Formats: sequence, C-alpha cells, structure tokens
Amino acid sequence: MKINRQRLLDDIERYGQYGKDIMGGITRPSFSKADIEVRKLFTNELEKMGLTVTIDPIANIWGKWEGHSNESGSIVIGSHLDTVPNGGKYDGAVGVLIAKEVIQTLIENKVTLAHDLEIVSFTAEESNDFGLSTLGSKTFAGKLGVEDLNQVSDSQGVFLRDAVKLAGGEIGELNKLSKARKEKKAYVEVHIEQGKRLEAKNLAVGIVEDMVGVYRTMVQVKGEANHSGTTMMNHRFDALSAASEMILAAESICNEDETDLVGTIGQLFVYPNAVNIVPGEVNFVLEVRSENQWRMDKVIQLIDNKWNQIVEKRKVRFEKDLMVKQAPLRMDGEIVSILEKTARDMSEPFIRFPSMAVHDAAHMASISKACMIFVKSIDGKSHCPEEYSTPEDIEKAANLLLHGIINIDKIFAEKTNL
Amino acid sequence: MKINRQRLLDDIERYGQYGKDIMGGITRPSFSKADIEVRKLFTNELEKMGLTVTIDPIANIWGKWEGHSNESGSIVIGSHLDTVPNGGKYDGAVGVLIAKEVIQTLIENKVTLAHDLEIVSFTAEESNDFGLSTLGSKTFAGKLGVEDLNQVSDSQGVFLRDAVKLAGGEIGELNKLSKARKEKKAYVEVHIEQGKRLEAKNLAVGIVEDMVGVYRTMVQVKGEANHSGTTMMNHRFDALSAASEMILAAESICNEDETDLVGTIGQLFVYPNAVNIVPGEVNFVLEVRSENQWRMDKVIQLIDNKWNQIVEKRKVRFEKDLMVKQAPLRMDGEIVSILEKTARDMSEPFIRFPSMAVHDAAHMASISKACMIFVKSIDGKSHCPEEYSTPEDIEKAANLLLHGIINIDKIFAEKTNL
Repeated sequence: MKINRQRLLDDIERYGQYGKDIMGGITRPSFSKADIEVRKLFTNELEKMGLTVTIDPIANIWGKWEGHSNESGSIVIGSHLDTVPNGGKYDGAVGVLIAKEVIQTLIENKVTLAHDLEIVSFTAEESNDFGLSTLGSKTFAGKLGVEDLNQVSDSQGVFLRDAVKLAGGEIGELNKLSKARKEKKAYVEVHIEQGKRLEAKNLAVGIVEDMVGVYRTMVQVKGEANHSGTTMMNHRFDALSAASEMILAAESICNEDETDLVGTIGQLFVYPNAVNIVPGEVNFVLEVRSENQWRMDKVIQLIDNKWNQIVEKRKVRFEKDLMVKQAPLRMDGEIVSILEKTARDMSEPFIRFPSMAVHDAAHMASISKACMIFVKSIDGKSHCPEEYSTPEDIEKAANLLLHGIINIDKIFAEKTNL
Repeated sequence: MKINRQRLLDDIERYGQYGKDIMGGITRPSFSKADIEVRKLFTNELEKMGLTVTIDPIANIWGKWEGHSNESGSIVIGSHLDTVPNGGKYDGAVGVLIAKEVIQTLIENKVTLAHDLEIVSFTAEESNDFGLSTLGSKTFAGKLGVEDLNQVSDSQGVFLRDAVKLAGGEIGELNKLSKARKEKKAYVEVHIEQGKRLEAKNLAVGIVEDMVGVYRTMVQVKGEANHSGTTMMNHRFDALSAASEMILAAESICNEDETDLVGTIGQLFVYPNAVNIVPGEVNFVLEVRSENQWRMDKVIQLIDNKWNQIVEKRKVRFEKDLMVKQAPLRMDGEIVSILEKTARDMSEPFIRFPSMAVHDAAHMASISKACMIFVKSIDGKSHCPEEYSTPEDIEKAANLLLHGIINIDKIFAEKTNL
C-alpha cells in the first residue's frame, strides 16, 4: 500500500495558494484572513472524507476516523497550517497534508485501524504577535489555561480570546479539553527538518529521538551614554562595544563545543541608538539549544565567565533575566523503535537525531507517547519563500508515516489484548 | 569691569525652569511649548534691556545694541536655547545667557562699542525630529533655502514651515536673510565643552581653534537569516557576529590613533531581530571625527581594509552609503589671537584646542570671522540632567567674553580707521 503522490503534491500546491504574498512567500499567521480561509477549506475536505470534525476550545482542528475495535484512545497525526510572515508552503502544511493523505489512502484501501485515527491541525504553532508560539498544542496539553490567556492581546490591542473565537474556538471552555487530552494514545508528526543534516547525509527522512532544550536569557549591558564627539576614546564606557565582544565570545564558545549545541544572539536593541551618542545600554537575547542538558549548562557557565571578564575590563556591567529554560525532551522510545523497524522493512535509509527546533510534538509528548519524522529540507532553508523539500522525499516520509501508524496500531492493540 | 555673577546664575536657574521634565532634566526642543515660552521670556527681557529685537525668517532671535560709530557690520554673541530631550540647563543656554549678561554689563557701565553688538539665539541647534540640527545657523548662513525646507516634516507629519511660523518665522521669506548675513563681522560663542579635556587640565576655559570634521557612513552587513535551532554553527552567515567583529575593529583602530580622533558606532539595527532567527542583516552607522583631515582619511581606510578581511573570512558582505562628509574647519586666527591676549591680560589660564562637536559657530564661520570659548564641563557630561559647569568657571568665561569683544571691537575699529 502506498500514498498517492500526485494527490499529495497537488494538495501542497493548493493549500500554498492561501496567504500568497507579494514577496513570493506565504503569509498565513493564525487568525489572519488567509488562515481563516484555509481552515474552512481543511474542515470541508475532512468532512468530505467522512471524518468527524471538531474545533476544540483553542481552535485546533480535529478530524476523527473511527477504529474497528473498542481499543481505548486514539492515534493522532498532523502538524500546523499557520506560517510565519513571508514563509514557505512546507513548514507545518506538509505534516498536516501528509496526515490527510495517509488517512485518505487507508480509506481508499478499506484498511481500518483498531484505534481511532485522528488528524490535527494545531493553532498558532509559529511565533506570533501574541507572543505565544505552539499555542494550540501547549494549551491542549493543559500548560496554558483561561487565566493565562484571557487578557492576552496582540500589538494592535486585539484580544487573543476574540481571535480564537473567530477561528471557532472559545477560551472560556478550555476546561473541556481535559477529557479530550486523556484520549490521545500516540502522536506522530511529520515536519520539514529546517536544517542541513539530512541533506549532508543524502537522506530523505530522519526519526527524531530527542527534542532540544531551549535556554533564553535577556542580557542588559549598561555603559554610559555620551557625546560621540567630545568623549575621547579612553573616556568611554561603550555598551555596544562591550556587547560586541560578548557576542563574539558566546559565538566562539558555541563553536568550540563539539556536539550539535547552538547559541544565537538574534535580537538586539541599542539605547539611545543615535548616530552621535556613544551607546549607553544594549539589550540582547542569548539563546542556547542542545539535546544535552549537561552540555548546555556547561556552555552557559563558560559564556558567563567570559562575559564577566569582558565587563570588568571595560568597566561596564551586565544583568541577565531568564526568559525560557526548557529542558531537553526524549521522544517515546517505543514509537521510535516501531518507526525504525518500519523504515528498515521499507528499505528506507534514515538517521535518528535530535530536533533542534521545538514543535507541537514537544507538548503532545507530555500527555501521550510522541515522536516525529523529519523530511529533508533543501539547503536547510525554512521560514522563507525558498523553503523546499522534493516530491520524492515528501512521498517517502508519507509512506513511512502510513506504515508506521499501521504498525503502531497493531503493536499497541496486541499489547492491550495480551 | 566684571559681569554680575549672581544675576547670570539666577538667569541660568530661571531659564532652566522652562521645559523641566519628570526625569529631572530639561526637555525643550525647538517649537515645543517650553521653547515657545522661553522665546517669549527671552524677547521680553531683551526689549526691556533696550535692545532692538527681530525674529528672522528661520525664527532665530536677534537683539541689537547700536554702536557709537558708523563702523559697518556687527559683532554677534550668543548660542541656542533649545535642548535635547531630557537634557541639562547649560548646553546652549549658558552661551545665550552669558551674551545677555555681557551686554547688560556694558549697558550698566555705560560702555558703548564702536560696532553694533548683537545677541542671537539660534533655532533648533540640537538634533531634532525634523532631522535638521544647527537649523537656524545653517539657514542663516545660506546653506538651506526654501526649496530645501518647504516640504520637510517631522515624524508626526508636522511641517517645519508651520512650526517655524509658530515661533515667529516665515520660511517663504528666507531670501530676506541675504542682507542680514552680510552685516555680521564677527561671531563669538561661549559653550560648555561637553568633554573632559578642560577638567583633566584643571582649566576653566579653552579657546577653540578648529572644529572637527565629521564623517558618517551607513554600513549594511548582509549575511543569511536562518532558524536559530536547526542551523548548525558552521552553517551560519550571522550578520550580527560579523558586525560585532567590525565594531571592535573600528574601535581598536580609533584607540590606536594618537590624536584626538574619535570613532563611534552609535546606531545599529538588526534584521529580522527575532530571538530565534540568526540575524540576516545588520545596519549601523560609523562616525569618525577629527580636526585633521589626513588622519581621518587614513583611519577610515584602515577600518575599511580590516572590514574587508572580516567579511571575506565570514563569507558575508557589506556596503557603505556615505551620509555626511564635513571637512574640519579652522576658527578665525585673528579672533583666536585677540581672545588669547585677552585671557593672558586677565591672567586666566587656558588651552587652545579643537571642538569635537559641531556648533552654530561652524556655519557662522562661513559668513563672518568666528570663534568659540569653551567652559569646563564637570565629568564631561552633557545632553543629560547631570550636565554641569561651576559658577566660578561660568563667571570666568563670561568675563573673558566681555573683555574679548571689547578688544575685538577696538582692534577691528582701528583697522578700518587706518
């Protein structure tokens, strides 16, 4: 049994028409006009396939295809349909549309699973103007409640609760999720890799066995703002020069680490940021990611030590304010093994590796067994119009998911009946 | 003959009440409510002193005290009354109020000069929301005309021409300035140093013999924006790391220069500036100031060479876009000599040095003989509430100006009568 490659590719093209922007990319953040339109298309198509569609209180879209036995709990496949501004048509959509194709294929082949099989498209997975990425899965997993979300608004003052309502959800009813949450037995998400590791090894797919921990800290470097002309070089306490040295030190320490650890300063603001004033303050965010907590802690310590030397030498100072400290996460070992065996049976070469990005699977992992399959990204690109995965690789990932969930269903059902 | 110290200090306190802000400083940008109020106070007081007050088309305020002979042309003293946001009460105001005190002293002592003596307060000397610092003096000197200013507006969409009208000017009548321009024979401005050179030498005053040249270039560093998790360290083309290295290189080259040259990166923007994206582009402004054109050119060349090495190594690139290239300027040698002799006669120790900031005197120098006297700044601070010069030093600068212009008047008058 194989998925219908052409139908899947057509779906990716078709869904990629929603939110097309003038820069050649796709701008489809959650709750935008394009998102509301693509949600309608998606729910209509699930209904036409014969699935039972529900929109949960955080506006995640679920489609259920009932299993033939009275196995308790469902197997969930899916991802998200929102995009970053000027993103591509693969990040998120590929996972949702492969899930849809897998169910379509099972239906056409009259194969019913023992468990219920559900497809999901999570709300607002990407970074968004509400400051809440992976909103749908995080809320579904019970990590965000009414009290956390009720007063949240975006930069335009729009309340999240109103945006969610527009998409068919109702934040006031989040407590209803607790029942649904208990019904999920396994979650398998296909996603583009967004990196170059599969390409470097010339592999179509990878099985994710860990998800990186993420550490983010705001760093405030304080020097002294002064006139750029009248303040001689040796009278300066330039916060930007100090920050520059701190950035290079962090980069160098992360470079020296021999694991897959990465460190980034992606956001930086200078104050007062005037051409004729020596910067008095610089705020930036240091992010460190690794699947190894010990390495992460070690690198953060090394960076701190070096930074203290730098500010002492320059007679400036810095403060840190922790923003995120998310521990690395192991995917479910049993599902990893089943997917591995499935790939071997299909003669599909693969690697097991950590996901360097956080996905909806991270939250689903806290309420069910979870795992991910990555598809090769060409040139590692994502979150841009050039984002691309080849038809061949997408097909291979879809077939791996198809047979993977057939095997998961079988093995899980056997266990219950022992 | 000496100025009245207490009256001068009272004036500084009194004018410092206008625009007092909640952060403990003075916020009195040109055309603000506080500026309009202080302009009224100033013109009223000049009229009470018996001066002939005029507001010119760019809203500079002039007060003329007629000379006793038919010497052609006037001697001008003054500075500006506007401040930066959250600035202090000395920058600008000290020069204007010393000029006022000097004229008051001459009047009280019944000393009339041969030349007309004029006091001026220039419009919008400080950086402002119209993007036009030293607006009043630059326009007065004929460097900006109706066609340059008529369509200028601030970030709120307010037209400069309307703001100027509010202050009593009329941009449509700028051509009337050409006559007034020809009448100015000498310009002497007292200003706070805004640096630490006088303090380091324990001197109250300095005589400015040069004004620095200013070079400013926009620098655009282009790397590749990428996901901060999935892009391994050795796959990155991080524009912020590259910019950091460029900033440190510029700083180091300026540090090594043994003259008073200074170089600053005061403004910097990161794109897309998100915590989870490796920066794809950084734009910053490099400023270099020196009184020596040859040193300036040399240092800019050294920085360029080093930057080219950095971007080559990091496989990123940069472009430069020249914003300002203002050559260093010599103050008038004759006035410098007269002021020097005056100081010596008064037993007032001083140094001759370059001004590292651009002042209204730079533009007045293009239409008349011009020079400046600097007063010691405590701790080099300016453009902040902590800006301060001692009563003793202010008094010394005022007396130097008083006797300086008496001498300038005498020597210039003698020359015409030879």
